[in-house]
Amino acid sequence: MPDSPVPVNLAERLARFADLWAQKKVAEFNDYEIKLAKLKGEFVWHDHPETDELFLVLDGRLTIRLPDGEVSLGAGELFVVPRGVQHCPVADEETAVLLIEPAGTVNTGTAGGPLTRPAGTLD
Amino acid sequence: MPDSPVPVNLAERLARFADLWAQKKVAEFNDYEIKLAKLKGEFVWHDHPETDELFLVLDGRLTIRLPDGEVSLGAGELFVVPRGVQHCPVADEETAVLLIEPAGTVNTGTAGGPLTRPAGTLD
Repeated sequence: MPDSPVPVNLAERLARFADLWAQKKVAEFNDYEIKLAKLKGEFVWHDHPETDELFLVLDGRLTIRLPDGEVSLGAGELFVVPRGVQHCPVADEETAVLLIEPAGTVNTGTAGGPLTRPAGTLD
Repeated sequence: MPDSPVPVNLAERLARFADLWAQKKVAEFNDYEIKLAKLKGEFVWHDHPETDELFLVLDGRLTIRLPDGEVSLGAGELFVVPRGVQHCPVADEETAVLLIEPAGTVNTGTAGGPLTRPAGTLD
């Protein structure tokens, strides 16, 4: 442990990047990554056969379309998409989210496509 | 999946309980539990040899004493206590936190004592 550990301030980390749909790792615990992302518009339908995915909205509003409906999340609301369930995140306004997934989870799951990108880090 | 899934609203869930140091499970993902707790005063020094522990402060201020210092978290700040590292949470004012740990993690780790209690759920 360092002598003076510092917390991860989510607002400060969000201010460090502007690119949309790009996941930025801010912490690790066990085999998982805590990531931030800014979303606007419509993502792609995809699933993660091997893991659940946790979304916590920090600012804005996120709709997660699901096979049998959709769930709408405002700031301070979280939702867990079960493994193997197709979902499509949509944000009408720019929305900041915290995500938790196992390290190495691909953002577009099994769908692939042009929005696929590895999780980045913040300098 | 239910037809109309609903998100977990953290403020609404926090309003449902008042007992201190009692972890309330609000969601599960994979083998982990997402829990809320209200803290005030000083907990016990303990560690979790088998898992990291994530603290995200939602309201108030939490100090986590560590062997070589301490870290102070305000609302919107998170910190991961590495597995096996002794720590003692302290809150001068009532503080609300979100915790993530593997299901079955004991709140007092290897220390035990009168503050040991299983994670509860909210009706």
